[in-house]
Amino acid sequence: MLEIRDEGAVRVLTLAREKALNAFNGALFDALVEGLLQAQADDNVAVVVITGKGRAFTAGADLTEMGQKTAPPKHGFAGAVDLLINYQKPVIAAVNGIAIGVGGTICGLVDIVYVAESARMRCPFTALGINPEAGSSLTFPQMMGPQRAAWFLYAADTLSARDCVEQGMALEVLDDEGFIDAVLTRAAKLAAQAPAALRETKELLWAPRREALRAAVAAENVALTRTIGSAENREAIAAFMEKRTPDFASLRQQG
Amino acid sequence: MLEIRDEGAVRVLTLAREKALNAFNGALFDALVEGLLQAQADDNVAVVVITGKGRAFTAGADLTEMGQKTAPPKHGFAGAVDLLINYQKPVIAAVNGIAIGVGGTICGLVDIVYVAESARMRCPFTALGINPEAGSSLTFPQMMGPQRAAWFLYAADTLSARDCVEQGMALEVLDDEGFIDAVLTRAAKLAAQAPAALRETKELLWAPRREALRAAVAAENVALTRTIGSAENREAIAAFMEKRTPDFASLRQQG
Amino acid sequence: MLEIRDEGAVRVLTLAREKALNAFNGALFDALVEGLLQAQADDNVAVVVITGKGRAFTAGADLTEMGQKTAPPKHGFAGAVDLLINYQKPVIAAVNGIAIGVGGTICGLVDIVYVAESARMRCPFTALGINPEAGSSLTFPQMMGPQRAAWFLYAADTLSARDCVEQGMALEVLDDEGFIDAVLTRAAKLAAQAPAALRETKELLWAPRREALRAAVAAENVALTRTIGSAENREAIAAFMEKRTPDFASLRQQG
Repeated sequence: MLEIRDEGAVRVLTLAREKALNAFNGALFDALVEGLLQAQADDNVAVVVITGKGRAFTAGADLTEMGQKTAPPKHGFAGAVDLLINYQKPVIAAVNGIAIGVGGTICGLVDIVYVAESARMRCPFTALGINPEAGSSLTFPQMMGPQRAAWFLYAADTLSARDCVEQGMALEVLDDEGFIDAVLTRAAKLAAQAPAALRETKELLWAPRREALRAAVAAENVALTRTIGSAENREAIAAFMEKRTPDFASLRQQG
Repeated sequence: MLEIRDEGAVRVLTLAREKALNAFNGALFDALVEGLLQAQADDNVAVVVITGKGRAFTAGADLTEMGQKTAPPKHGFAGAVDLLINYQKPVIAAVNGIAIGVGGTICGLVDIVYVAESARMRCPFTALGINPEAGSSLTFPQMMGPQRAAWFLYAADTLSARDCVEQGMALEVLDDEGFIDAVLTRAAKLAAQAPAALRETKELLWAPRREALRAAVAAENVALTRTIGSAENREAIAAFMEKRTPDFASLRQQG
Repeated sequence: MLEIRDEGAVRVLTLAREKALNAFNGALFDALVEGLLQAQADDNVAVVVITGKGRAFTAGADLTEMGQKTAPPKHGFAGAVDLLINYQKPVIAAVNGIAIGVGGTICGLVDIVYVAESARMRCPFTALGINPEAGSSLTFPQMMGPQRAAWFLYAADTLSARDCVEQGMALEVLDDEGFIDAVLTRAAKLAAQAPAALRETKELLWAPRREALRAAVAAENVALTRTIGSAENREAIAAFMEKRTPDFASLRQQG
């Protein structure tokens, strides 16, 4: 589910639910959190890379497991968001393919994002009748500027790899061929610096943003209690199942 | 004075004082506020577009009506700024031509700005001996970055349409020919999303910025009580009337 | 040590310790602070330009004077940072050559930065086992965006003049030939505007950032009490003296 390996002082965490395009269920969130905690506690790890196995980075939340009677996860989505906001070592996202929903919003919770040439990113909250999560309502404007973030989130638009870099969502586009090796070369450059100094620098960069980021996550979660299961959300899901365009206009007439 | 029409779920508000290059007097601010309030209350409206009639977006505050004995406006400039800061639906500015003063600063109070190829923008506060308004002292650095905002405001410089996009003031340059139709195509993409989700997303994007934005407007207004009518401001206006370069240096010697 | 001259209403302060590549010792910080205070108090000065004499802007803190028994400076580094955060007139940094450490971080404390074609910038805090200073942990993300700032500070990377502009660290690259004249032409455009209006505009641009900037400087200083003289910092300095790569990994094993 989560593959773990080291390249020198770089810990690589690979989302590995290939058949589900690495979609996150509660168990994968838990595995990621445990992997991150281990990396944080390990003095031999200076930098963490998160990537996906196969053709996708992650397809986002696993909708097929929604509503199933499963034990609640130990950490889950909320635990992963909280840990990344407070994380003590540099984290790199290596976005190797499609990145949907949390595959996009996680980019605002790490330090640096690299995108493979074939990567595509989409956060289709408004198309699903719900709202942004994982602090993206704050981190996207900080990374992309307010107008590009507004367009990306309002229009539920898709970004190419080049769009991601031009709009501040990622630092660099790298070839698909040899993508993870190119990311690891860059991670190694960070890992060669003094590790305690790296941690002090990370803390200084994140401390000024942390309070507002927590407030944004809290506000997003309150909004999600209104939007998840709303008439719009139900219509979006029904339309998806029935392979038709959602009819939000009719809801508006009734509203 | 303000033309109002709908294209699907997009409400278009057109500033229409063509002889005055759509300059704002109190009555036009009031009409804009009333138009925005109606659009906000109308369930059939998902997105609002503000544009200008004819060759100009707006020439800014109408100086020719200054000092005239007219009844104070109901909402005025302050009411328009306050409403935009608190507005509940996505707003697009379609900057179709010259945008002076509030024609520039309003861009920081909407979600997305499109500029026509021939548009030109200028906020000549320092040239007039006054200071930024409408929260632009905060929104311009957020959109443009601190150095570009400092140059734009300090130097009273003019931005071309391409400058606006390259510097973060606008999202896209569109051809003059068919400009408003191209904007409406983009607005329709937003309006096709779930409307309550759009409103939740807008609120999440603006809530973290609102307190600081109100404080910036308040500080700007305090500064304006010092700068409007100051020796520098009077010299700038006299020089403009006499078609000469203002002589701020002499004031400095006296100061 | 600090050369002072006026070009119209522009005060030019030139760091002039050419043999030391204009590295800052306590005396140079004091001279800069005194020069800035005089410029602030002088009604004939509208804009201040800081530049370096010869081939360097500044090589950063003068390590050769560290540990020497000298009288503590009157203002020093902390006084210079504090004054720039509170400064009342537009300040331009004209980065004419290499800019190391404070040569980079000072760019976050001025209004506008111009870089000569041959300029190179580096803030090698993590390479030295220490951490960012002068508010750069806050100003660099604001100027460069969070990911580029993270890479620049984590990797201790070197920016070319073009990198500086593309990444938001500077406004424009100018030819080496005639560099300072080109900067002065731009400074003169600011100095031609109404001087009190310029000061009001500067205050409005800086007031919203000042509290967070002071907090960032304070947090950086606390971190420096941990990192300066740390095992990593001592290893970095020893490696530099012995012209070898620092061995941070061994420290990690012991840690």
